[in-house]
Amino acid sequence: MRYELFYWPGIQGRGEFVRLALEDAGASYDDVARRKGGINRMLATMGGRDKHPPFAPPFLKVGKLVIGQVAAILFYLGPRLKLAPRDEAGKLWLHQLQLTVTDFVKEIHDTHHPVGSGLYYEDQKPEARRYTENFLDERVQKYLGYFESVLRKSGGPYLAGRKVTYVDLSVFQLIEGLRYAFPRAMKDGETKISGLVAVRDRVAERSGVKTYLASPRRIAFNEMGIFRRYPELDL
Amino acid sequence: MRYELFYWPGIQGRGEFVRLALEDAGASYDDVARRKGGINRMLATMGGRDKHPPFAPPFLKVGKLVIGQVAAILFYLGPRLKLAPRDEAGKLWLHQLQLTVTDFVKEIHDTHHPVGSGLYYEDQKPEARRYTENFLDERVQKYLGYFESVLRKSGGPYLAGRKVTYVDLSVFQLIEGLRYAFPRAMKDGETKISGLVAVRDRVAERSGVKTYLASPRRIAFNEMGIFRRYPELDL
Repeated sequence: MRYELFYWPGIQGRGEFVRLALEDAGASYDDVARRKGGINRMLATMGGRDKHPPFAPPFLKVGKLVIGQVAAILFYLGPRLKLAPRDEAGKLWLHQLQLTVTDFVKEIHDTHHPVGSGLYYEDQKPEARRYTENFLDERVQKYLGYFESVLRKSGGPYLAGRKVTYVDLSVFQLIEGLRYAFPRAMKDGETKISGLVAVRDRVAERSGVKTYLASPRRIAFNEMGIFRRYPELDL
Repeated sequence: MRYELFYWPGIQGRGEFVRLALEDAGASYDDVARRKGGINRMLATMGGRDKHPPFAPPFLKVGKLVIGQVAAILFYLGPRLKLAPRDEAGKLWLHQLQLTVTDFVKEIHDTHHPVGSGLYYEDQKPEARRYTENFLDERVQKYLGYFESVLRKSGGPYLAGRKVTYVDLSVFQLIEGLRYAFPRAMKDGETKISGLVAVRDRVAERSGVKTYLASPRRIAFNEMGIFRRYPELDL
């Protein structure tokens, strides 16, 4: 089965959590919107060509199925890519963790867009500073501390236990992104999440991920994505 | 099977999307934290008594299974309560819609808490005003317009077509909540979403929902929940 991934070209963004799963598994997929004419196809699908239009990218097409929302895409792909267990309880637990990743990603996004995603960062800088101060003081540690405790309870070496899952790939991406966006804050914060950092290191060494990161398919972090380096926010 | 729902007492909040499904179906459930000692049981589960601690309420206990995240809970309950189809494609489509409800609910919450959920509204009033201006101008119509178009494409009378699902119950709650929080803005906005308003009316007449709304189990909207009536924000 060939997968078609639809996401904005030029950024890692939310699409990256799906890309990492596909790449780790060595799955065959098209990153449609990065090809000629792809953005138009993406917009046509969202605009209602399909009976089940997704609200926003990323979404995945598999035959006639169109699946939007990162966590739903990974829920679908997980067992098929051998990045999730097949039993209902195991699948639901992973999904729950991924939905918490989703919440965290939204809060990370809002560090540069606390007033509105349709406005420029430059038009919400004072609000961004105040939001980010609270975010770095309270929220980062709350989320990362939660995942660290989940890892500890699992017995390791991965968040769901003995086997790697798509949630571990997402934790890799979270740590990479937070290091990019908030290098100073993360330097202090990482001492408390040594388990997650070890997961990040293990994921980085996986052959599919390693090949991907060294390829031109991995877009560099930049100031259009979720994780942005604005030194004035890295308090 | 008796369900145990865990959520903060005193507010509808995110728990209400689950309550509406349980009540519509006439399911047998305990609203644990509204009983004596229930909050302690809730906090103990989150604090790690369980191997799979949820990040936050609401969560559902079914035997040994603990499911956090509203959309995941409804994904699990949907087919069991006959509020979702049983085929994979149908289940995923509903789940995708519910995840978009989740995103909308977070943006609604942020109208009074744009800087941080740990701070008082009173300490972020200027930011709340600016955020809400953009929210009412751009976001409400984007989300409601999306659901209205989904309804149209489905052929009706419900969002997934011929049969009522948990997503219709959530749309009921969204409209009720937005009417409570932003009566002036909604008065103008509702003309564009007549299909959704008809869904809301149909849901309100369902016997399980009707009984529930008239019972003391339905907590009134108030200024501790997701939907808050602050006249200065209803622009």
